Amino acid sequence: MNLQDYIRDIPDFPRPGILFKDITPLLINPKASKFALKSLVELTEHLNIDKVVGIESRGFFFGTLLADRLGAGFVPVRKPNKLPFDKLSQEFQLEYGTDRLEIHKDAISKGDRVLVHDDVLATGGTAEAVCKLVESLGGEIVQCNFLIELTFLKGREVFSDYNTESLIKY
Amino acid sequence: MNLQDYIRDIPDFPRPGILFKDITPLLINPKASKFALKSLVELTEHLNIDKVVGIESRGFFFGTLLADRLGAGFVPVRKPNKLPFDKLSQEFQLEYGTDRLEIHKDAISKGDRVLVHDDVLATGGTAEAVCKLVESLGGEIVQCNFLIELTFLKGREVFSDYNTESLIKY
Repeated sequence: MNLQDYIRDIPDFPRPGILFKDITPLLINPKASKFALKSLVELTEHLNIDKVVGIESRGFFFGTLLADRLGAGFVPVRKPNKLPFDKLSQEFQLEYGTDRLEIHKDAISKGDRVLVHDDVLATGGTAEAVCKLVESLGGEIVQCNFLIELTFLKGREVFSDYNTESLIKY
Repeated sequence: MNLQDYIRDIPDFPRPGILFKDITPLLINPKASKFALKSLVELTEHLNIDKVVGIESRGFFFGTLLADRLGAGFVPVRKPNKLPFDKLSQEFQLEYGTDRLEIHKDAISKGDRVLVHDDVLATGGTAEAVCKLVESLGGEIVQCNFLIELTFLKGREVFSDYNTESLIKY
């Protein structure tokens, strides 16, 4: 099964010049979704993951499914002011300006083996911020995995210290 | 297993006077999450669901898992300007002012048997807007289910025309 058949290119979204990778055709197809999930699990099932950290919002889709298959806890990392309990915050650079992500302080225990998941690895800034949050709480990043990798943006170079995997490469 | 043990009360979030139900302690516990998912599946597995529609963002957690267990497609309903393809939009009332939700037009086919899922049934305005979107696209709402129901807000009365279920009642 070629998973690229289930990814839709959307030109000029969310801004002119960006070719957006729309994963909703994959989510809507149970066979293709199960195949993608199985392939993601194969990348990580030998790693004894305690927690899967999914990045808001599109990282929640396969993040929850990965946690389910791996028997791990699921931890959402969210945009500012969405999480209700004591939290840690991390700023990161966008193309223009900065943004911020948050994690509950009680979401990671010292020594937890953590898988960070998002739908797309682009420049890597978002996932790098998430790795910092997890490490600040004493977690060990065992793998960062992504459904899609935009290799031409060289985000992987940001993750040279981490075990980085992706399923669909452009 | 008493699932209420895994729901955390947060006073005055997101606004003063609101007692927020935080489901992150449930998500982080694999046994409790699996139990909650199994219980949600039991409410719906006899209904031949084609599509599970999850409402951004907290409806994505168990929404994707329900779609997985039921062998159904997953459809995200999102806040404005997040979905990239041709979409339908529905306004709904909030306590103060209005908000809007969007669905891809190609997400529902005429005659699809649809399960709408969200984490919390409060006043019902959000899920009602989602039901309207699904029906506008020719889908049949077979069930609306919720992890949590705040019964004192009487949101269920909004859904008198639908098969409405919830797991944890307050």
